[in-house]
Amino acid sequence: MRHLLSAGDLTLDEATLVLDTAKELAQVGGRSVKKLPTLRGRTVVNLFYEDSTRTRISFEAAAKRMSADVINFSAKGSSVSKGESLKDTALTLQAMGADGVVIRHSASGAAHRLAEWVDGAVVNAGDGTHEHPTQALLDAYTIRERMGRLDGLRVAVVGDIRHSRVARSNVLLLNTLGAEVTLVAPPTLLPVSVRTWPCSVSYDLDEVLPKSDVVMMLRVQAERMNAAFFPTAREYSRRYGLDGDRFARMPDHAIVMHPGPMIRGMEISAEVADSPRSTIVEQVANGVSVRMAVLYLLLSGSGSGTGN
Amino acid sequence: MRHLLSAGDLTLDEATLVLDTAKELAQVGGRSVKKLPTLRGRTVVNLFYEDSTRTRISFEAAAKRMSADVINFSAKGSSVSKGESLKDTALTLQAMGADGVVIRHSASGAAHRLAEWVDGAVVNAGDGTHEHPTQALLDAYTIRERMGRLDGLRVAVVGDIRHSRVARSNVLLLNTLGAEVTLVAPPTLLPVSVRTWPCSVSYDLDEVLPKSDVVMMLRVQAERMNAAFFPTAREYSRRYGLDGDRFARMPDHAIVMHPGPMIRGMEISAEVADSPRSTIVEQVANGVSVRMAVLYLLLSGSGSGTGN
Amino acid sequence: MRHLLSAGDLTLDEATLVLDTAKELAQVGGRSVKKLPTLRGRTVVNLFYEDSTRTRISFEAAAKRMSADVINFSAKGSSVSKGESLKDTALTLQAMGADGVVIRHSASGAAHRLAEWVDGAVVNAGDGTHEHPTQALLDAYTIRERMGRLDGLRVAVVGDIRHSRVARSNVLLLNTLGAEVTLVAPPTLLPVSVRTWPCSVSYDLDEVLPKSDVVMMLRVQAERMNAAFFPTAREYSRRYGLDGDRFARMPDHAIVMHPGPMIRGMEISAEVADSPRSTIVEQVANGVSVRMAVLYLLLSGSGSGTGN
Repeated sequence: MRHLLSAGDLTLDEATLVLDTAKELAQVGGRSVKKLPTLRGRTVVNLFYEDSTRTRISFEAAAKRMSADVINFSAKGSSVSKGESLKDTALTLQAMGADGVVIRHSASGAAHRLAEWVDGAVVNAGDGTHEHPTQALLDAYTIRERMGRLDGLRVAVVGDIRHSRVARSNVLLLNTLGAEVTLVAPPTLLPVSVRTWPCSVSYDLDEVLPKSDVVMMLRVQAERMNAAFFPTAREYSRRYGLDGDRFARMPDHAIVMHPGPMIRGMEISAEVADSPRSTIVEQVANGVSVRMAVLYLLLSGSGSGTGN
Repeated sequence: MRHLLSAGDLTLDEATLVLDTAKELAQVGGRSVKKLPTLRGRTVVNLFYEDSTRTRISFEAAAKRMSADVINFSAKGSSVSKGESLKDTALTLQAMGADGVVIRHSASGAAHRLAEWVDGAVVNAGDGTHEHPTQALLDAYTIRERMGRLDGLRVAVVGDIRHSRVARSNVLLLNTLGAEVTLVAPPTLLPVSVRTWPCSVSYDLDEVLPKSDVVMMLRVQAERMNAAFFPTAREYSRRYGLDGDRFARMPDHAIVMHPGPMIRGMEISAEVADSPRSTIVEQVANGVSVRMAVLYLLLSGSGSGTGN
Repeated sequence: MRHLLSAGDLTLDEATLVLDTAKELAQVGGRSVKKLPTLRGRTVVNLFYEDSTRTRISFEAAAKRMSADVINFSAKGSSVSKGESLKDTALTLQAMGADGVVIRHSASGAAHRLAEWVDGAVVNAGDGTHEHPTQALLDAYTIRERMGRLDGLRVAVVGDIRHSRVARSNVLLLNTLGAEVTLVAPPTLLPVSVRTWPCSVSYDLDEVLPKSDVVMMLRVQAERMNAAFFPTAREYSRRYGLDGDRFARMPDHAIVMHPGPMIRGMEISAEVADSPRSTIVEQVANGVSVRMAVLYLLLSGSGSGTGN
């Protein structure tokens, strides 16, 4: 594994290695011991062309907990706005000694292109509507922690699949890990290509809920709901939101997930979000562990040392 | 002491402990030895919903000087603007492993609410027009350094009391520490609740100056001066600004303070600001020591260690 | 050397010392050993009044590689916009314990003024149209690495000399180091004072190219090209851009430089930029080494230590 560009690139063994490594780091690097010298002397650049404080901070915390130096590069007001290409930005970061680049970009495929140009490791932190592999890894980690396994589990992913890199990465990774994914959305919020994805599709949330071990709610973006011919986002919420009534139709052992940031009362009600069967806060904590694992696996063997 | 939310929460013993600890850290962590391993492995998040480079940098310098990891979270362009609540932001930061959160927010009471939701320590770095306790602590520290004591000193606080969290925190803390505070402002710039505060009030700066050991000038915000029925900010300055003539009416031993950033020629003249009896630059330096003390007292016992 | 304000301030010995130190640090601090304890306990503040992600990151990487603490201060939304003067900002940073301040400012002379007010070291990272000495140092370093020497080399600097702090700093430093500089630009893009600079001037790029050992292209800013009476930036490009045909007229041993960010197809064609005789990426890498050297020479002797 030289880069982490797509959840679909990971073999079962590779994905399992990431999850197992994250588990180990969560124990060593958890409450009792928070600072590891593992990546001392390595430099991680957070190259963010879109704002995403949450993801940026998660990677920053993960890198710093392993003693890496972190440099935040927000494309706003940078030389990007002076006409510099992604390629030249990439070459610049590499020349400055970046061992790893974590990239968030509005264009699908940006992370793949970056990986062609730099020697260091590239981690895709979300590219357009394409992929967000560390989100899928932290989701898989969270499911495994809660349910004890992934193989054979039935996972429903509910919401705006069409614009969701989270959905796509989850479908690919969960399939590799042996889970059965059902996407639930109105037809207008499904991508055209969905027939080729390794998963089932349903338009009826109420029908899917009783047969799900895991229900993963996606974030609603009001402007897209309107474009999808719902008169209001509220109307979408009535059809596809997870409220207490719907929650009651889920099996007793089933859990509720959300990648955040969530809008309580929109795609998920406050009571469901705060239920002990909701894993939303755990997902955030697991995100740091999984990103530590990814950075560790990609960067620790890169041969740089420390003079300290 | 689990959090630092209000200067009014501090007992005399607690306030004195902060000041004494700051003094000790200023000596150990001063010019000769600047990096202490005290908070290695702890993570401090600066959660700033308002711009305040000055306060953010002071906390950042304090935390780094004790080897903590610092993560800056500016709410602008973050998931906050995507509709995420303060509560969910708080739970997210905690899940990511924040041992301490330093919060600046435009809403009075934001720090208190945050403290209900997170396990880590919360430090109020200014909430609306409510409080700014570390500013009051650094002011008290500065007075004690200059005058040798706080008990029995007469302190005048001059300016826009109504909108000043600095004024309120200073009144509460100085009262605990035994000083006598007089607020000086036009009636329109005093809060309605001022009658319940443990201090005196005057509208006449010239009358108060000769009886003051300490004169603390607050920052003028031009737009509020107009709202306060002064035809111009300049007119306010004529009535409540501290120029050389007024300075001459102060006792010879009296000092001049300002929390900064100041506007020379507005609330304070350049010659007064640069006088050896002005403590403005010392206040900034003492701010780092006091914030080191606060972070040390809140975080050093939290049981996290280091694998380094 | 207490500050680095102007490339013209450096004697031949001082400039050589910086280049030699950079060379040493590039070897020790290069691929094999990336983290040096040299500046542990020192604090470097990046005080940027203009956006320049590239320069800021280069200084940040340089400082962190030597274990300094780095605090980024972007003037946007800071107390600067509340009316605070540069002087008060400077005194504030110093009081907070900044051992070095790296300043980028839109006003020519800002770095010099800052140096009058603070005890710590000031590094000019670009002030208006005045100077950018570390850029000149990294360019000189790059030339020396490629050509083995600087003395007697013929260097052409091409483009908008009038608004370029890079050009001015290069002329001054290269002159000190014994190279012969020719500035190439249309008359409207030359400063009035150019007659007093220690260099030659030409309006004709094609005439200068065959006699140059080094050709340094400057960045084109479209809005200035129009002001310079070119009907379009494209027209400028035709007269003063470096494309494949012009590149072929250069001596075989000659190299092409560019401070970045470049606009491929405008001042330089893609094929020239990517040629093995282009040093553009090396310049970036050398920038980190040279900035390490400057920070090391200015800060390592400042007597601060570490309690760690």
